[in-house]
Amino acid sequence: MHEDLAYASVRHLRHLLKNSAIGPRELVSLFAERISAHNDVSKAYITDTSALAEREADALEGTEALFGGIPFASKDLFDVKGVPTTAGSRVFYDRIADRDSTCVARLRKAGAVSLGKLNAHEFAYGATGENPHFGTCANAYDPTRIAGGSSSGSAAALAFGLAAFTLGTDTGGSVRVPAAFCGQVGLKPTAGLVPTTGVVPYCWTLDHVGIMARTVTDAADILSVIAGFDAEDPGSVNVPEENYAAGLEEGVSGLRIGIPRAFFYERCDAEILSHVEAVKRFLEDEGAKLVPVTFPDMSQTRTVSLTIQMPEALSAHSTHLRDRGDLYGEDFRAGLAVGQCILAEQYIRAKRFIARYRQETSRIFKDVDLVLTPATPIIAPKLGQSHVMVDGVSEPTGNAVTRYSTFFNMTGNPAVSVPCGMHSEGLPVSVQLVGRYFEEALVLRASRAIERNDKFAIPLPDLRTLKKQ
Amino acid sequence: MHEDLAYASVRHLRHLLKNSAIGPRELVSLFAERISAHNDVSKAYITDTSALAEREADALEGTEALFGGIPFASKDLFDVKGVPTTAGSRVFYDRIADRDSTCVARLRKAGAVSLGKLNAHEFAYGATGENPHFGTCANAYDPTRIAGGSSSGSAAALAFGLAAFTLGTDTGGSVRVPAAFCGQVGLKPTAGLVPTTGVVPYCWTLDHVGIMARTVTDAADILSVIAGFDAEDPGSVNVPEENYAAGLEEGVSGLRIGIPRAFFYERCDAEILSHVEAVKRFLEDEGAKLVPVTFPDMSQTRTVSLTIQMPEALSAHSTHLRDRGDLYGEDFRAGLAVGQCILAEQYIRAKRFIARYRQETSRIFKDVDLVLTPATPIIAPKLGQSHVMVDGVSEPTGNAVTRYSTFFNMTGNPAVSVPCGMHSEGLPVSVQLVGRYFEEALVLRASRAIERNDKFAIPLPDLRTLKKQ
Repeated sequence: MHEDLAYASVRHLRHLLKNSAIGPRELVSLFAERISAHNDVSKAYITDTSALAEREADALEGTEALFGGIPFASKDLFDVKGVPTTAGSRVFYDRIADRDSTCVARLRKAGAVSLGKLNAHEFAYGATGENPHFGTCANAYDPTRIAGGSSSGSAAALAFGLAAFTLGTDTGGSVRVPAAFCGQVGLKPTAGLVPTTGVVPYCWTLDHVGIMARTVTDAADILSVIAGFDAEDPGSVNVPEENYAAGLEEGVSGLRIGIPRAFFYERCDAEILSHVEAVKRFLEDEGAKLVPVTFPDMSQTRTVSLTIQMPEALSAHSTHLRDRGDLYGEDFRAGLAVGQCILAEQYIRAKRFIARYRQETSRIFKDVDLVLTPATPIIAPKLGQSHVMVDGVSEPTGNAVTRYSTFFNMTGNPAVSVPCGMHSEGLPVSVQLVGRYFEEALVLRASRAIERNDKFAIPLPDLRTLKKQ
Repeated sequence: MHEDLAYASVRHLRHLLKNSAIGPRELVSLFAERISAHNDVSKAYITDTSALAEREADALEGTEALFGGIPFASKDLFDVKGVPTTAGSRVFYDRIADRDSTCVARLRKAGAVSLGKLNAHEFAYGATGENPHFGTCANAYDPTRIAGGSSSGSAAALAFGLAAFTLGTDTGGSVRVPAAFCGQVGLKPTAGLVPTTGVVPYCWTLDHVGIMARTVTDAADILSVIAGFDAEDPGSVNVPEENYAAGLEEGVSGLRIGIPRAFFYERCDAEILSHVEAVKRFLEDEGAKLVPVTFPDMSQTRTVSLTIQMPEALSAHSTHLRDRGDLYGEDFRAGLAVGQCILAEQYIRAKRFIARYRQETSRIFKDVDLVLTPATPIIAPKLGQSHVMVDGVSEPTGNAVTRYSTFFNMTGNPAVSVPCGMHSEGLPVSVQLVGRYFEEALVLRASRAIERNDKFAIPLPDLRTLKKQ
């Protein structure tokens, strides 16, 4: 398979398919070959269903469907009918989905073809993607480093050229962080916009479905397909249908972009900060107005998030913990043990913190249209590194990498991570853009402005170098 | 004051005020006199502000406002500017409201005049209305019996003729139960329809503002004033404005009325059941169709409700418990102690029960327009009775009286209790009608059909008999 197809945007593949420059079967087969060739190193796929996909693709020859013949893959928390959903755990060794999750169903209805199920941190608990059951995904830019997590496979599959786009989930940054580490666009839409029906729950208060794509336009197109009310999801919100790609090229002139005074620019790698500075200057040059904003006290955000995550995870897992507790990995089991010690009053207090975070963030968005932060305070860390040193302070790796993302799972605002350059250590650097509820179109429009500027473009990973590692 | 004014409906008083048959000041003064005369026995008022109300009424002479000059009173959990809000507790001995709660503000804007603040179970915790700080409200039909709770004063004020209508709160039946015991109309609207801003919270997951009135039409008029979105209440829902009194006289012909197969007609006083049977026959005669319906398993409902109530109450009270714990009554303090033992996982499990209750109840309301049950399984019990015997089974009084109401705080459906006759022991009996979300108009229409039928009318209490006790 030509590299240019493996790394082509969905828009470009749709163009080729439409003009019969390539057929759906041929495209799927090319990805199937790449999965065979690169999965040992990338560890992106837990279940490769490309043989099934080839048969599906046959039926799509000559299709007029919007995504007809586009090969995608989903984090192994999304149900795909007839295929195992492991959620990255041996605990679910016998779980075969009896129907598609809502997002997968909507994509397949639009003609997209599922190549398989992607690796993740066990049950999406953890931001490093380390998985004791299925191996840990490598970073395509440097295989001694992690791809990030929890949607590690969703980012690795794109960076290794093993799917045209992927689905992930984001409870504290699990789409935005691996996307940033692997040079992809990662979108966490507004809470309730994209249904979680058929997705293994981890923490329903904070769980979001997310999108990883090669371009902002692709992300907008995918969102247009998967967004929308689903009565089966109690958190689903009924908002009008929208074409999120409609105004993407309109630029940032006149937009007020909030720059947080504290926390989001603190204890951050200096090179990352200088990349973000370049983005700020560019946005100003393009006519945006940068406005300093003050977020609420952030000192408790991680505690608040975990105080909600762990008992909710425990509640979802209580039966399995009893029946097959020995199958859990150590990391997740330790989290569930923490969950057992949290009192209802503490959980409720955490929920009240969230209510306050939402109020105060809504107040900020009265003054600005968007907020800009670095996507992560560090580039992808080395495999197996339990702690990282940032600005002279040692911090658990999982805490560090999600430091700028977690807050927006609590508030529910739409947030995207977009590549904006390369670090001198050869790893991608990204910014995070955050918007008002249901204003993904605006978030994506500003992201597209950044992406469109060549000086923020990043090179593809060189897999030949990588093979030698 | 003529008894006929003290027990007149709001509609009738509005008519008299409009035609200058009586003036606002005169009306307030008449109620003020009655409060002086009857508060010792009724214990309805904690704070009597009728002197202030008289001055307010002066300014309302000749007003055209919808509720211009109508005297009302609120449970002492509603803030009224400049007046103490005790929430029925000594803990709040120094709490003076600095502005009106949203409901009170909306009523006053419509011209209604606040006579004062009404007694309640301490912090609305408990359905008997027993209050160690301010005394326990008596039942106007038999002062050896309770008025019910927690909105005991809201019901007693109406039954003793000490206000034209009242506000209460309903977390497990606290408006519907005392209304039923005292022969009043008690409405708990859909969760989120009436804002709780400025109302002392007890358990925000289940708290509802409620209305007590002499007639169904009054309840509809009051609801039309206090319903509607309030950005300050995170649970507030944005629904179109509505005149809830519009279709009240249209009757029940063609309506499908669900009759639960189990639980709601079980372990119920035989005379109450025969009154409800009479209502069923009447509704059928009027052209409604009775449809048997099956509710979800009800065996856990009380546990689920308390597992949510107690830690939420604890969370709201943690500061006061630390600073002035000795001022709490025994009953509420015991509840808070229970709250301290509940784990986050148990609370979350209870929340998931609620999600299931909502789903299953919504399914029932696909087949029927309303559900009919007795309002309570027993008539008002004697004062100080910790347990009651129903159908040969002994049960804590608070459990028994809320047995049919609690569930609809968890589902959030609108529910009303309407008098339907007198028990041979001289106490009122009521039915409960429950509807779909935001269909209070339909619930009230069916209630009005019952109320309009003379055979369900109940006599006014005879306060002369009562004085002799």
